[in-house]
Amino acid sequence: MTSSSGSSCAACKILRRKCTLKCLFAPYFPPDEPHKFANIHKIFGASNILKLLNELALNQRGDAVNSLAYEADARVREPIYGCVGVISVLQKQVLQLEQELALAERYLTQHVRARGRLKPVEYL
Amino acid sequence: MTSSSGSSCAACKILRRKCTLKCLFAPYFPPDEPHKFANIHKIFGASNILKLLNELALNQRGDAVNSLAYEADARVREPIYGCVGVISVLQKQVLQLEQELALAERYLTQHVRARGRLKPVEYL
Repeated sequence: MTSSSGSSCAACKILRRKCTLKCLFAPYFPPDEPHKFANIHKIFGASNILKLLNELALNQRGDAVNSLAYEADARVREPIYGCVGVISVLQKQVLQLEQELALAERYLTQHVRARGRLKPVEYL
Repeated sequence: MTSSSGSSCAACKILRRKCTLKCLFAPYFPPDEPHKFANIHKIFGASNILKLLNELALNQRGDAVNSLAYEADARVREPIYGCVGVISVLQKQVLQLEQELALAERYLTQHVRARGRLKPVEYL
């Protein structure tokens, strides 16, 4: 599928092939975003992406391509951990926040109980 | 690299090739964990994994293979979002915990201030 300006999609440009009206990549890889396909191609390979898209319904493919692009970008930036590194950071953040929340709730409970005990004095 | 029992590594078994002492996959894909390589191969492709391992130092490859296996498993289970779905869930969890913590801290501050105002009465 060529764009209105007549350019091939970013995938066909990188794969050096003719972009036809039936191109499965074209809706998700516009010619002005070449890096999106470049990283996906480097990490997953064009044929694996094509297989994956073919297994999904049309209305699921856009989300799938975006999540694959996110994963590929993360792996290019961080070749050892990729986006699993992001998951690890977030899991630690959740754990820390849960601990801080539990502490704040414990303090709050103690303060509320302490105020409760003071009530008879307060209203003397 | 064949194991002590003489079996090929899981990667060479799946790729139907001879597993030699120089096999780059063998240290990370033991014969008794065939699914680990199967999913990585399905999602990334063996040649992409090989390229990625070759770009890393020896002591980084084990972590890289494990994070790739995690990503591949997530994508097989959830073809649209893969492990980006996990990131999305964790980000929402962080946001919710931050809001709950801010609320708990606001209540705590109010209670502490309220107790402070009551002090002169308490000690009458």
